[in-house]
Amino acid sequence: MANVNIKPLADRVLVEPMAAETTTASGIIIPDTAKEKPQKGKVVAVGPGTKDEDMTVKVGDSVLYGKYSGTDLKLDGVDYLIMRESDILAIV
Amino acid sequence: MANVNIKPLADRVLVEPMAAETTTASGIIIPDTAKEKPQKGKVVAVGPGTKDEDMTVKVGDSVLYGKYSGTDLKLDGVDYLIMRESDILAIV
Amino acid sequence: MANVNIKPLADRVLVEPMAAETTTASGIIIPDTAKEKPQKGKVVAVGPGTKDEDMTVKVGDSVLYGKYSGTDLKLDGVDYLIMRESDILAIV
Amino acid sequence: MANVNIKPLADRVLVEPMAAETTTASGIIIPDTAKEKPQKGKVVAVGPGTKDEDMTVKVGDSVLYGKYSGTDLKLDGVDYLIMRESDILAIV
Amino acid sequence: MANVNIKPLADRVLVEPMAAETTTASGIIIPDTAKEKPQKGKVVAVGPGTKDEDMTVKVGDSVLYGKYSGTDLKLDGVDYLIMRESDILAIV
Amino acid sequence: MANVNIKPLADRVLVEPMAAETTTASGIIIPDTAKEKPQKGKVVAVGPGTKDEDMTVKVGDSVLYGKYSGTDLKLDGVDYLIMRESDILAIV
Amino acid sequence: MANVNIKPLADRVLVEPMAAETTTASGIIIPDTAKEKPQKGKVVAVGPGTKDEDMTVKVGDSVLYGKYSGTDLKLDGVDYLIMRESDILAIV
Repeated sequence: MANVNIKPLADRVLVEPMAAETTTASGIIIPDTAKEKPQKGKVVAVGPGTKDEDMTVKVGDSVLYGKYSGTDLKLDGVDYLIMRESDILAIV
Repeated sequence: MANVNIKPLADRVLVEPMAAETTTASGIIIPDTAKEKPQKGKVVAVGPGTKDEDMTVKVGDSVLYGKYSGTDLKLDGVDYLIMRESDILAIV
Repeated sequence: MANVNIKPLADRVLVEPMAAETTTASGIIIPDTAKEKPQKGKVVAVGPGTKDEDMTVKVGDSVLYGKYSGTDLKLDGVDYLIMRESDILAIV
Repeated sequence: MANVNIKPLADRVLVEPMAAETTTASGIIIPDTAKEKPQKGKVVAVGPGTKDEDMTVKVGDSVLYGKYSGTDLKLDGVDYLIMRESDILAIV
Repeated sequence: MANVNIKPLADRVLVEPMAAETTTASGIIIPDTAKEKPQKGKVVAVGPGTKDEDMTVKVGDSVLYGKYSGTDLKLDGVDYLIMRESDILAIV
Repeated sequence: MANVNIKPLADRVLVEPMAAETTTASGIIIPDTAKEKPQKGKVVAVGPGTKDEDMTVKVGDSVLYGKYSGTDLKLDGVDYLIMRESDILAIV
Repeated sequence: MANVNIKPLADRVLVEPMAAETTTASGIIIPDTAKEKPQKGKVVAVGPGTKDEDMTVKVGDSVLYGKYSGTDLKLDGVDYLIMRESDILAIV
């Protein structure tokens, strides 16, 4: 996980996606079905939150998020996603 | 019900679905009609809730939820659903 | 009205529908017109309400509700509907 | 106006519609144009209101309401409409 | 402007429309273009307002409102419009 | 800029549009591209604001607003637009 | 970055876009994929914020924003975008 110089605004989170079909150490396998599948990634930067909402996830957390969440972003040759914390389903 | 290492965010709940047509101990039979049918499952993980909403369901509860609620997730070979508590209709 | 072992969440109500065309003791007849028609049922279980909304209906109340309200549910061979209290139009 | 045994929930009002083209004592004539026309009726039952909204109309009030407001309901052979007070335009 | 016996509910206003193309004393001419044009009318009755909103317009005010605002209403042979105060653009 | 006798309601602003392609004293040129372009105008009347929102613009301000904002209005032979302050992008 | 004489209203920000495909000093490369891509720009003017929201970005910040955010504006021959701060994803 590279150091990145980016400050997400408000309740946004910068996530480095992991390969979708890999079986990880904790054994999660993203199923290949017709329903929308969650994706897994590593949190690399977290916004300050909003007046209404403190942030829960921290840098380094592994998170699951919906397949179409966030906006693509390439930084120093690495692909990231930037999304709102509400797009994150769970910490794994 | 396997132990799972997953922390749902906010008001989300991780549910292990039960077979849809089974007659359970409490005798619930999901009818096979044209209208949208509730599904039954076991709660395996519960988020901390939100500022506006405390959580009602607990790990181990049997719950009913709408047919298209939540997002599929496979964990250690088991299929789960992750949904908001507001998608849960009742505890049975 | 059978005893049921089900706890609706939040502001949800479990209703046992009555036959739609019957003339009841209080004489209500559901008209057969093109407009959406209310249905009649008996309340069999009531959720605890929400932070914003206390519950008004009680177990045993006869209620009217819109034709497409709620979700079907079969319990010990009986058909029920589970709906939000805001889907209930009136107590009769 | 028959006595009715019905308790509208929340901010709902039970209205007995009057004939749409009649010239009444106060001389109101509902015009027959292409635009949506208000309807006139008599209030026969009023809900308790909500936490956010007290009720303004009373039983016996003559009210105007939009053409497609409310839900049809037949009670002891009389046609009624049940609608939210916010669907009522004016007392006449 | 006839006396009318009508009490608009909440934040509703009863308006007697003026002829759309007339040049009035204050010289306002409604242009005939493709864009939506405001209409001019005289306020003949005003509701009590809501808990969230006091009323600004008074009986006798000349007001401008959008072309498709409000609901038609004929009263003692005169055409009126009943609309929410938020549909009124300005007092002229 | 003519004196006008019009009182916008709530958070509405009466704006006299300026010619769209002119290069003004401050050098603003509205570009001619496919994307929606802001327009420039002079504020000639300002509403009192709402309970939730005080007004920022003042009579005489030059403002930019979106191309499709507001409603056309001709007053003493001059074309105006009446819009909500939230439709105004900036003071220039 | 030219000095500009423009005051964005409320929570709006004036941004001078940077060339989309350039590799900048911090090494950000906007990827050329089918998904919506963030754009990079320099903040040149910032509104005062709203009652509900203080401003986070400052003049001179480099920011990322969605591809279709904001409204085009040409000022002294330079192309700008004016957008709400909520359209800004991150400071880089």
